[in-house]
Order: sequence, then structure tokens, then C-alpha cells
Amino acid sequence: MMHSPIDPAALTAALIRCPSVTPEEGGALGILEDVLKDAGFTCRRVDRNGICNLFARWGEKGAARSFGFNGHTDVVPLGDEAAWSVAPFGAEIRDGMMWGRGATDMKSGVAAFAAAAVDFVQQTPPDGAVILAITGDEEGDALDGTTALLDWMTATGEAMSVCLVGEPTCPEEMGDMIKIGRRGSLTAWLTVTGKQGHSAYPHRAVNPLPAMARLVDRISAHRLDEGTEHFDPSTLAVVTIDTGNAATNVIPAAVRATVNIRYNDLHSGGSLTDWLKGQLDAICEEMGVTGALTVKNSGEAFLTPPGDFSDLIQRAVEAETGRTPVLSTSGGTSDARFIKDHCPVVECGLVGKTMHQVDENVSVEQIHQLKAIYGRILRDYFAG
Amino acid sequence: MMHSPIDPAALTAALIRCPSVTPEEGGALGILEDVLKDAGFTCRRVDRNGICNLFARWGEKGAARSFGFNGHTDVVPLGDEAAWSVAPFGAEIRDGMMWGRGATDMKSGVAAFAAAAVDFVQQTPPDGAVILAITGDEEGDALDGTTALLDWMTATGEAMSVCLVGEPTCPEEMGDMIKIGRRGSLTAWLTVTGKQGHSAYPHRAVNPLPAMARLVDRISAHRLDEGTEHFDPSTLAVVTIDTGNAATNVIPAAVRATVNIRYNDLHSGGSLTDWLKGQLDAICEEMGVTGALTVKNSGEAFLTPPGDFSDLIQRAVEAETGRTPVLSTSGGTSDARFIKDHCPVVECGLVGKTMHQVDENVSVEQIHQLKAIYGRILRDYFAG
Ligand SMILES: [Zn+2]
Ligand SMILES: [Zn+2]
Repeated sequence: MMHSPIDPAALTAALIRCPSVTPEEGGALGILEDVLKDAGFTCRRVDRNGICNLFARWGEKGAARSFGFNGHTDVVPLGDEAAWSVAPFGAEIRDGMMWGRGATDMKSGVAAFAAAAVDFVQQTPPDGAVILAITGDEEGDALDGTTALLDWMTATGEAMSVCLVGEPTCPEEMGDMIKIGRRGSLTAWLTVTGKQGHSAYPHRAVNPLPAMARLVDRISAHRLDEGTEHFDPSTLAVVTIDTGNAATNVIPAAVRATVNIRYNDLHSGGSLTDWLKGQLDAICEEMGVTGALTVKNSGEAFLTPPGDFSDLIQRAVEAETGRTPVLSTSGGTSDARFIKDHCPVVECGLVGKTMHQVDENVSVEQIHQLKAIYGRILRDYFAG
Repeated sequence: MMHSPIDPAALTAALIRCPSVTPEEGGALGILEDVLKDAGFTCRRVDRNGICNLFARWGEKGAARSFGFNGHTDVVPLGDEAAWSVAPFGAEIRDGMMWGRGATDMKSGVAAFAAAAVDFVQQTPPDGAVILAITGDEEGDALDGTTALLDWMTATGEAMSVCLVGEPTCPEEMGDMIKIGRRGSLTAWLTVTGKQGHSAYPHRAVNPLPAMARLVDRISAHRLDEGTEHFDPSTLAVVTIDTGNAATNVIPAAVRATVNIRYNDLHSGGSLTDWLKGQLDAICEEMGVTGALTVKNSGEAFLTPPGDFSDLIQRAVEAETGRTPVLSTSGGTSDARFIKDHCPVVECGLVGKTMHQVDENVSVEQIHQLKAIYGRILRDYFAG
């Protein structure tokens, strides 16, 4: 039985209507599973610690050429819900744009690949396998998402020869960028402690806030590096400073801050931890406070060096958009950091301008274009 | 009928046993009223918005020499009740100290003056009036406490020629300090707003935290003045910085901070507001953020210049303690800030070391000494 082509925009809309804020599955993986099963994919839920993930394969397990795709259906929270001018899970289309949480990051990417893969295996069944490894835990801690899928695949002999990650990768125009690596990401929690007291007698207290303020000013103003051939300059963002002191006549004992560093291969989690520790120690010495530092390194910087797989994807994007995509390593972390230990991994998606923002939206035309790119990548890969 | 002298320690204990945490009267004003009425004082409750206050006068209304006393019977909350090693409202005496909330701040001061005043008017009826204006709302917002009493007094033609405030004024030893003014206190709430975004793309967001950090560093490092003849240097304490951003991958839109300034008579609420506004504007200009400022000025700095009244009190303290008290303007605000618009006001009390703390306590001997000081002040004032 021949299926009619799948409309990737309609599938994106169906996924957006699932309120799948991490860790909620929200019905999104169920919709995908139905579509893929219907096209002959073998589907398997790989759930771990309450997180839902979906593994789907068309073709034989262990095929010599197994094309993998990775994406996520979970989305970040709405933020200031009152600030949304559309229903956040409505998938409303206006002026050629589809609106809603996950519109760009990355329900459109998942839908575009699923649609392309279904059409591809139906129309020109390849000599090999097409695998989708879709997670419901990319935006959260990612402890039980793509890693759970990869662990299960390793344990059961499932493997991908290459893997395409469908995260939005284009900063401005469709086709302007694909990603061959990612910067590392390190989060540090800083605490500065002084001595509590009455705000009328500051000389009897040691206020930790000026020390924390100076530390935040210094590390925010510091330029970590100027970038490398394949990497942008590393960036540092202090994302929160909190004290929680409601009494205006009390100098608090302590203040906490959180710092997120996205770093290139000039740094490592270890070198940055040492640097932060040095900055904190200097402030403690200077301001008479004590400091504490906790660090979580979510992933070291990595690179899939330019080669066959990135060339193939670059050419497909160029054929469909007329643009030669830049090979980049910019942006946040993605689950590619887990996949790079298993096979070559390249990321290719649409424009991510509104990801994580209020009124997230995606161009409907871009969803169709992305399906066309993914379809061409599949044809080219199996023709190769 | 001649009364026997009143024991100020027993009266303090009776007041401590009234659980008069602001805004509760707790029975404390009732006890005072009984004692004063019994000695021939005309008493009047001046209650406003649920707050109880007591006005008491011995002698004729409108007397040329009307000696006023101001104090409060309300107390701050217990704080960590489990940390108390005594019953907080027990007034237990151990090792010469009386323990309980309000022991120093300032049930002992009220009891000492009431005892001194009763003895004085009984033993040597003066040519004039003795007035007690006792409030149940000093530790709270103070909107319906001493101001309610002063409003009522103005409306009914009651007036004080001078006023003694019985707050604890001695930092270390009995008699080491009296207060002839107070610094002003201003609280400012600052908000710095940027543009929310993903922490991996800081160039697309405007992080308000480095701007707030630089602002806090700058205003904390700034020395407002070097002090004046009668005032300590003004102080500034940033008491809280809060963001409330739980997402380490999100650059927040805004951050808030609260600043408390205790200022001398080189400044005013207006001049400090202008200065803060200028600092905030400069940061906004420099860092591309927007700022907002809200200010509450709890009281301007004021001074009762050294003169007859402070001399009289200083001499009385010296005669009873052998110490010449320093004329100071240090410390937090007190209700003297309201009284200074009506008559010369000086504050004179005992050692305030444990005020507002767990296990607040007062030396029983100091209560008796304070009664003696107050008695001498009354005699000297009406002899003058
Ligand atoms: Zn994503
Ligand atoms: Zn007090």
C-alpha cells in the first residue's frame, strides 16, 4: 500500500498541541509512533526513570548502512505565560508562521524528518536502515533521554552508521548553517558568605553582596578567548543572583549566583573550574568573605571534523536552498555531545531565532523546505 | 495618701509577661495605666487602626513646663523560638539579669520612667506637668503609634516642652551614651531590565545581571561622606539581590536589589534619591539596560543641637553613673524622628546589646539605675 506524502506542517502542528514541557511526554511521542508504525517502522519505547523516549527503525537491525536521526519532542517552559500573544500550545498559523512552544525547538525538525523518512522508505525503499532516536528529555537534565536510547541501543546491538540531529541550526536564513561540533557547557554555583547584621550597623556585619557584585562584574567583563578556526569565542553568562532577604534592616549572611559558560576547545571543564576558583578566592581575600563553588560540566567541547558526512549534508542544503551552509560549532549544547562517542554526528535544521522565547514561531515554508532537505540527504546517503 | 516607691524591676517583669509582639497590646498598656492612674495621672487611650497607645498626664494641661516621655511597649517577634534558653515572656531572673523579649527594648525603660515619675509627683509635686506618651507600634510600621499620639495631642491642645525617649542608648556600659539626633533611613528598590534569552547565545540577549552587579559594586564602594561633628559617616547596605531564575540555560529579563541607606544631615531623602537615580541612569547608558527605582524614606536625619536639655540629661547620667555620656546620633531610627517636629528630644536609656536578639536580657541593677537617672532628670528639670 502506497501512502500519500506526509504534510510536515500538519505533523508539526499536531506535536505542538501536545503540552510536552520536560519531563511530560504530553502525547507527542505517541503521535510519532503512530505515524512511523503505519509506515512500517518497528517502534520501541525506551523509557527510563519516568522519561519517555522513542526508538524507531525501518529496515534490518545491524544493516551496514544505518542512517540515524536524533531529536527531541520535549519543550522548555512557557516563561511569562501572560506575555504570549497566542495560545502557547495552539499551533495557530498567521502570516505564514506557525506559533507555539516547540515550533522551532524542535517539533518542526522532528516532524520534517519523520515525514521525509516515511515518504523515502515508501517511495524508494533503501538498502539499509533508517533509525529515529527521539527523546523526551533534551531540555531538562538529559540524564534519561538520548543517553537512555544510546545505552539501550548498545545493549541490544542497535547502531547508527551516521547521525543527523535536527535541532534548529540556522541563525538568520534557511540553510545558512549546519553544526559539526558543539561548545562545552559548564554551570557553576557560587556562594559568598559574610556575617549577618543590622543594616544600621554595617561595620558590625560583613555584607556578602558587594563581594558577589564585584565578582559577577569581573567574570562577566572577562573575555575568555577570541575563538578558533571552528569555534566561536567562549561565552559566560551569570544567569541568577539570589539572596532571599525580605528584611530591609538586615544585612544577609550569604548570596548565591549561578554562572553558565559555553566554551570552545581552548578550555576544558577542569581549566574553567580552576579559573572560577581563582576569581572567587581573589574576591574572598579582597573583601573578607568566604566562598564556595560547585560545578557541573554538562559536556566538553567536541568537533566532528569536516568530511564525507558533513559534505553530503552541506550539498543537500545547497541544492534545496541555494545557500552553502557554514560549518559551525556555535550555540548551546545538544544531544550530539552524547552521540559523538558512537558515530559521526552533524546537526542540520531550520532557523532558531525564537527558540525558548515567548511567542516562539516557525515559518511554515521552512518546515516544508526542511523536509525536502532531509529527503535529499536520505536519498543521497543511500545512493552513495 | 503617700505611695511607697515603685519597684521598676517588678514593673519591668510584669510588662515582659505581657506578650505584646507588634501589633498586640498584650495587656502591657493596661498595667501601666493602672499604675499611673493610681498615682493621679489622667490617662487616655489613643488607639488608631487597631493599634493601642496610652497618653498619661500628671498636672495641668498646657502647663508652661511640661516634661514629656516617649517609649513603646510593643516588642519584635521571638525569631527562632527554639533557640531561646529561657521562657521568652517569663521575665526570669538569673545571675542578676532579667530575661525575656523586651527586657532591654524597651519595657525596662518604660517601667523605669513610670516608676520615677510616680515617685516624683508623689514626693515633690512639680509646678508643671509630666506626660507619658507610650505607643504599641514602634517596632512595626509606626504609622499608628507615636504619630497617632502626637496627632491627638496637637488636636486636643496637649503639648510637651521637651521630650525624653527611653530607648536603650548605651553601646557598652550604663551611661556611656545618649542620643541627640538620629540618622535618616532610606530604602530603595532597584530593578534592572535587559532582554531574556538563551544562555548559549548571550549576544542575542541583554543580561541585566552584570549591569546590576556593577551598580551594586559602585554604590557599595562609594563613600557617601566622612561624617560630621555630631554624626557618623552615612552608610549604605545593599541588603538583597534577587533574580529567581531557576533555569541555568536562560538569561533572565530582570534583576532586583534593595538598598538601605542610613544618612546624616549632609544628605536628605531627596538628595540620595537623586544620587541613586544618577548611578542607575549611568549604568543603563553604559550597559544598554533599563532601570527602575522606588524609594521609601522612613525619616530624614535630624539633630537636637546640644543645649540646655541635653546638658541636663548628661549631668544627671554623670551624677548617677560616674560616666559622662557621649552625645551621639548613631544607630537605627526611633520615634524621636516624629517628636523632633514638636519639641527638643533627647534619648537616654540603658545598654542595648541584646535588643532584638534571642535571649534578650537586662541587668536588674541597670533598671534601678535608670529609674534613678530619670528621677534626677525630673527633679533637675523642674528645679531649673
Ligand atoms: Zn532543542
Ligand atoms: Zn525600641
